[in-house]
Formats: sequence, C-alpha cells, structure tokens
Amino acid sequence: MTDAAVEFSDFRVAALAGGVGGAKLVRGLDSVLQPGKLTVIVNTGDDFVHFGLQICPDLDTVCYALAGLADPMKGWGRADETWQVFTSLAELDAPTWFQLGDKDLALHLERTRLLQSGWSLSALTRGFCDRWNIRSRVLPMCDEPFRTRVRTAEGKLLDFQEYFVRERCEPKVQEFVFAHAENIQAAPEVLPALLEADLVVLCPSNPWVSIDPILHLPGIREILQEKVVVAVSPIIQGKTIKGPAAKMFAELGIPPSSLSVLDHYADFLDGFVYDALDREVFQNYDAERIILYGTDTLMKTDEDKTRLAAEVLRFGQNLISRKAP
Amino acid sequence: MTDAAVEFSDFRVAALAGGVGGAKLVRGLDSVLQPGKLTVIVNTGDDFVHFGLQICPDLDTVCYALAGLADPMKGWGRADETWQVFTSLAELDAPTWFQLGDKDLALHLERTRLLQSGWSLSALTRGFCDRWNIRSRVLPMCDEPFRTRVRTAEGKLLDFQEYFVRERCEPKVQEFVFAHAENIQAAPEVLPALLEADLVVLCPSNPWVSIDPILHLPGIREILQEKVVVAVSPIIQGKTIKGPAAKMFAELGIPPSSLSVLDHYADFLDGFVYDALDREVFQNYDAERIILYGTDTLMKTDEDKTRLAAEVLRFGQNLISRKAP
Repeated sequence: MTDAAVEFSDFRVAALAGGVGGAKLVRGLDSVLQPGKLTVIVNTGDDFVHFGLQICPDLDTVCYALAGLADPMKGWGRADETWQVFTSLAELDAPTWFQLGDKDLALHLERTRLLQSGWSLSALTRGFCDRWNIRSRVLPMCDEPFRTRVRTAEGKLLDFQEYFVRERCEPKVQEFVFAHAENIQAAPEVLPALLEADLVVLCPSNPWVSIDPILHLPGIREILQEKVVVAVSPIIQGKTIKGPAAKMFAELGIPPSSLSVLDHYADFLDGFVYDALDREVFQNYDAERIILYGTDTLMKTDEDKTRLAAEVLRFGQNLISRKAP
Repeated sequence: MTDAAVEFSDFRVAALAGGVGGAKLVRGLDSVLQPGKLTVIVNTGDDFVHFGLQICPDLDTVCYALAGLADPMKGWGRADETWQVFTSLAELDAPTWFQLGDKDLALHLERTRLLQSGWSLSALTRGFCDRWNIRSRVLPMCDEPFRTRVRTAEGKLLDFQEYFVRERCEPKVQEFVFAHAENIQAAPEVLPALLEADLVVLCPSNPWVSIDPILHLPGIREILQEKVVVAVSPIIQGKTIKGPAAKMFAELGIPPSSLSVLDHYADFLDGFVYDALDREVFQNYDAERIILYGTDTLMKTDEDKTRLAAEVLRFGQNLISRKAP
C-alpha cells in the first residue's frame, strides 16, 4: 500500500463495471488507489422487480465486493448467507428461479422502501456505501429504469434476468434491446466523474449486457472518445471465466475472442489488456492507435486483483504520458 | 369430535374476526365444525405496505392459527421463526418497528407478487389456505385497500400499524377514520357467506379496529340484522387479554366493560357471551332481546378454544330455536 500510495497518489480513475468479473477488478482498483479516487459506474440494465422488490444485481455485487461482504466462492451474494426466506418461499410454491439470501433480501427491502420514499438510486447507494465504509464512490449508471432485454432466435423478448437466471442463458440470442424512457440520462454524478477521471477503465465485464448499456446513455461515448480508456478483456482463449459473453459473441456471428472485445470498443479505446494466454490472437494485430498489454488476467485471489489493478493503472499512466503533448 | 360431528353436522357459521383473540376462537370453531362449514371474514383495515410488501396482519394471524403454524406464545407470527432478514435490516439502519420473521416474510413476498400479477386478495388467500390444508374458508373482508387510521387527541392521523406497533398504542385516541374508495365493496364471497350462515359469531376481537371495519362495509349490517348473531366479549373485568380495546373505550369516554361491548353491537345482536368473572356487570341487565351467556372465555390452550367454541355454538343453536316460529 505504501508503494501504491506514492505511485497513484493523485490518480483519478472511473471504472465501468457489470457484475462478478467487474467487481473483482474494482476490488483491486479500490485497494490500490487512494480513498475517493475511484468512481465505479455500474450497469443497472439487469435490474428488475421481483416479489415487488427492486433488485440491482450488478450494483450489489460491486458493493458487496468493496465492502468485503461478498461470498468469496460464488462472486455474487453475501458471505455466510442464510436461506430461511428462500426455503419458505419454496414451501409456498413461489417462484425460486432467482436465489434470494436472507441478508441480501434485507438490502432489497430497504432499497425498495427508500425508492418508494422518494430517494434516488444514486443517493441510497451512497448511503449503503457509507454504512459499509466503502472508500470508493459507486454510482448506478442511471437513476431511472433501464431494462436490457434479450430477443431470442425464436423471436421471444426476455427480461435479462429471465434469460440469464431463469432460462440459464440457454436461448440463442438474436439481439439485445435496451428499454428505457426516451429522455433517459446517466445518473447526475456519472458524466462529471468521467470528465474528471485521468483514466477510464472498462472492467472485464460482458461487453453486450454489462458495458454496452452504460455506453448507450447519452454523452458517455463522446466523453470516452476524449479520454484515455483502457479495457480489460473478459475473454481468455475464446472463453469467459463466468457468464455468457463468449456464447453471445458466437450467436451474433462474431468469433468469441479477446480480439472481438477489442473491436467492440475500438472507436474510443486507447489501450487493451488481454490475457497472456491469448498472445497468438494478437500476433498479427497491427497496433497503431490501440496499445496492447498482455498479462495474467485471471483473478482468483485478492492478491491477483490488486496485482492486475496495479498493472492496469501503470499501463494507463504510460498511455497518458504517451498521449501528452 | 364424534359428539361435535353429530351436534353440528350441518351447522353453517360465519365468524367475523380480527387478529390474536379472534384467531383463538376461530381455531376452536374450526375444530368443532364440519369441514367447510365455517367461513371466517377477516378484518383487513390494519393491512399496510412496508418495504414495498403487502402485509395483512389479521389475515395471517387467522391463517397461521388454522394451519397450526402460529407461534403458540405470541399468538401472531409463525412458530419456530427465525430473524435473519430482520437482523440484517437493523444492520442497515432500516426501520425495525414492525417485526418481520423470515418465514412470515416469505408469505408477504409471495402475496405481493401475486397481487402485482393481478390476483385478488381473496383468491390468493384461498391458494395459501389450500396449500396449508385449512378446512375452513378464510375471506379477507374486502379485496380493495381499506385503511383504518387513528386520529389522536393531538390531532395527528396515524396509519393503524403506526399507532399500534410503532407508537405502541400510546397516543390518546380521538376517533377512528376508515379510508377507502367511495365504492368499496365486501369481497365477493363475504355477503353470500353471511346470507348462507345459520349463525354469525363476532369473535372476541377489538370492536373499534377489528370488527367495526367489517361492519362498515356496505350490506353487512343489514344482513346481520336479519341473522342470529352472537358476540363474544373481548373484555374481562374491564381489561383486554391483549391489545388496546379497553384503553380505546376509556379514551372515547365509554366505560371499558363487557357491557359496553354489548351496547356497541346492540342493534343487531341476539346473544352475548361474557366472562363469568363479569357476572356483576350484568346483574341488573334487563335481557329482553339480547340473551346473555356467561362462561370462562379465557383461551389459553387448544382445549379452551374448542370448549368455548362448542359453548358458543350450542348457545347459538338455542337462540335459533327460540327465534324459530
């Protein structure tokens, strides 16, 4: 931490993140950067209402990770969770396709209460983060409803959690549909956080359903084009550590590879971090505008997260000094 | 049960009930009457929305009692309850004035989900009762929102649960206000159940906030005037076993006694069951139209409930034969 304190003493970073993979790198960035210097902008496209409760899977995964409350095995949900309510729901023949732990439920309940009392999602998330002594700033990408839907090859339009959890990502994807009000805006602190950032990091999250919803909000892409932006590939050797990103690439007719991830962000990207196992993928890649950095991107332990975060930040700093006039 | 099977073989009863006290007699009636012959019409005036969930305290107390799931000590909530969510809510600084057990919460969640899917409260209550193998029919008094509010002596208007639980019945009552749509109706099966009943029993529930909301619904009072109706006093020796009924009588300037309960229902009552300890209260009572019956009305055990229920039913049968031409 002393090294990092000097190395990244004034470095401001904005990270775009989805759930499990994103939360891992976010935890690393949080431990390396100075308190308050990291802002995490989190996908809310897979939020949904279940049993009348507002559930924000990615936001919770990121917050639990930063608070040290996350289940270390699953990567989502709370450590030492209990399942009393869930068991009782099953006894009532209630739907159990979405797992609701008891501790996790308390958060959904209180969030729903606060939303219905007029709090914004941004404001109540700040309240929870304060309660949990989280040093970084966590922002939902927007305060208004934004729903990522999946149109399947059979023509069905599924809510994301229905596709992701209930249908276990089994239906073939034809396209993603973002449903929201016409005048949807990023949450109030999002654009300022991006403008203030020295570096923007796209976490190793699903490009289609975790990062694209954030990029879809007005003004974000334009800011990223002016910023130094580094993305970390969520794909290693054509596969994802977790989640359906590789399957989605394939079903959309795009080779599932880290190169496809790079291409996906090509219009605003400055640097791309891929896994060293994918060296061959980039062998003939003509890096002109986008600089490559290969390393071990698999994050199993907290040490892995800190190490990768520090590498990403150093890589970002180099890009900034290259870009400087 | 063999005696009861003969004694009450075709006897149809409709019982009006609130929470804890009412649920005790209802459990006795359910065990004495033939399956399907008892319909319980339950107060929903103290239902409320908490954390976005629809909570129906009296309905749940009655159902848990009939299902054999009730906490035998408290009289409300579930036996063998756990409090994991509630503990986690406290850790989030969320409001904890209303106790939410884990098993109980599952019911609130599933009810909220079904209501939001378009089910009526009557229909989903029938579903839960079937699930729990409840032999009697349990009806919410109405399917639409009905809110009992308490105007305090200081002029505040409190939702019933705020008054009852959060403020622990401490504010002095000035009046009760029933808030509902102008065209409020009893739930579809309520008036038919009353019309079909051989006997209507008013359980030993709070007259002001458990029974009056039911009586307030259009058509109910008119039917009761034509029916043989027996009330069981919730007040013994000027006190209530549980709850604020005696305090409410006093604050409204009415002596808190079983006689005041009788007077409260006098316009449609045929018989009144009071506790034998209150014999002196009725010493000079000139029983003309309303016939009195004194017995031990305290229900501590299931045997007490069955015994009192059988006495109430026999008393009712006598009234019916007296009234018959």
